[in-house]
Amino acid sequence: MKGARATPRLVFGPSVTPGERVLPEEVAVALSFNGTTQAVMMATPSDLEDFGHGFALTEGIAGPGDILSVEVEPLPRGYDVQVWLLPEAEARLAARRRTMSGPVGCGLCGIDSIDQALRDVPAVPPSGFRMTPAQVLTAVAALPGEQRLHDATRAVHGAAFWNGRVLLAREDVGRHNALDKLVGGMLRAGLAPTGAVVLTSRVSTDMVQKVAMLGAPMIIAVSAPTAEAVAVAETAGITLIALARPDRFEVFSHSDRLTEDSHVG
Amino acid sequence: MKGARATPRLVFGPSVTPGERVLPEEVAVALSFNGTTQAVMMATPSDLEDFGHGFALTEGIAGPGDILSVEVEPLPRGYDVQVWLLPEAEARLAARRRTMSGPVGCGLCGIDSIDQALRDVPAVPPSGFRMTPAQVLTAVAALPGEQRLHDATRAVHGAAFWNGRVLLAREDVGRHNALDKLVGGMLRAGLAPTGAVVLTSRVSTDMVQKVAMLGAPMIIAVSAPTAEAVAVAETAGITLIALARPDRFEVFSHSDRLTEDSHVG
Repeated sequence: MKGARATPRLVFGPSVTPGERVLPEEVAVALSFNGTTQAVMMATPSDLEDFGHGFALTEGIAGPGDILSVEVEPLPRGYDVQVWLLPEAEARLAARRRTMSGPVGCGLCGIDSIDQALRDVPAVPPSGFRMTPAQVLTAVAALPGEQRLHDATRAVHGAAFWNGRVLLAREDVGRHNALDKLVGGMLRAGLAPTGAVVLTSRVSTDMVQKVAMLGAPMIIAVSAPTAEAVAVAETAGITLIALARPDRFEVFSHSDRLTEDSHVG
Repeated sequence: MKGARATPRLVFGPSVTPGERVLPEEVAVALSFNGTTQAVMMATPSDLEDFGHGFALTEGIAGPGDILSVEVEPLPRGYDVQVWLLPEAEARLAARRRTMSGPVGCGLCGIDSIDQALRDVPAVPPSGFRMTPAQVLTAVAALPGEQRLHDATRAVHGAAFWNGRVLLAREDVGRHNALDKLVGGMLRAGLAPTGAVVLTSRVSTDMVQKVAMLGAPMIIAVSAPTAEAVAVAETAGITLIALARPDRFEVFSHSDRLTEDSHVG
């Protein structure tokens, strides 16, 4: 199966048993914009074009209208996802690189680097999107059916987009990557972001920031958020639902989108 | 409790109940070396001096003998962990920054950036360290007792060092940070690395790389590894135990350290 590999191992239980376990694969993926690498991620080698589109949007590098093409080039030790931007977008990125040259050993002091890491994100656009509590439970219950790689390995993260049903789902060994692939897949499919992003993972501030860049009004997560992620969701106007179980869930921000009458769209 | 904060939320279950949940805190932590920031991490605001010492070692920036002091400076929006290196170490770091200026928008192409990300790590030094299967199960069972922040929040990662018993344990919202804090705490306490690093988290290649930089011969993880993490452990001479349950575990590399006769040290 793509993204997974059978690996020999010994099981120590009541007795010692040799055999194999299917483990997720993890490869180095460079994300390059007009020929210059912006980041290297360890990621599951699937849906890499989506990854390029999604990373560009959620990290504020380029929107879908700025992208000329995304090419995935296999390298000896990984992949280079080459995003080619329109000239105007490239000029903006170049200007941004000059003034905000990144926190990794590029000469900034701590206070400037932190201000850059804690970027402000836009508030999600107004919409009539609502969900009933029963729909939230249905969305959470639908997620496992979309996790083929997780079924094989029990060890990858999933991200799905819900509006009435699961419209798209992506998986990755990294929770940020799974979300970026979902966002890129949505952009490429022309899906409007008015719906809920359903996550298997914990919700840290950077996950909420990425969803805010997408413009989706709701996050439904199986695991817990951090206190600061709740604050970012509050500011961005996002309904943050977490600790979703088969029969209950918790709402940390903008609970007004939970109603008994659902309005989709 | 330090590192956690009670946050209001609504529980939607059979009925709707207001109340509070204790969530982990997550703050921006800059890691700066002789005044220049190398990275910004979202981390749990505890054991930040350990974090500085550990990150320096596991990322190959500076060993304990290279560090003059580590100062934690509170900033308006986080902390700056300021690591001050001896002049020789600073000169080495400066030379490394010139030739390997980091994958984040610093002008490298994909293939160079990936070669840098997939750094080779040293093989762990030879030792007579062995564990019996029963000791592995005891080490796994001991971990929950060391996770005070996780007890309060159910949402942070733990890393512990075991040699006969848990000698040190650290927690963080990020699994890499928890390991870096453990490594830094071990360096500061003068603990030799001959023992097992016990992790609550999944084991990706970068986690094995960090343990290899510490020089510990064994990893015991509750969750699964990636296929590539197994390959790195094999090369580095590390025994990788994962999917550890109360009554069983799986060994993916160097199973010769599992014996019926334990030799510590």
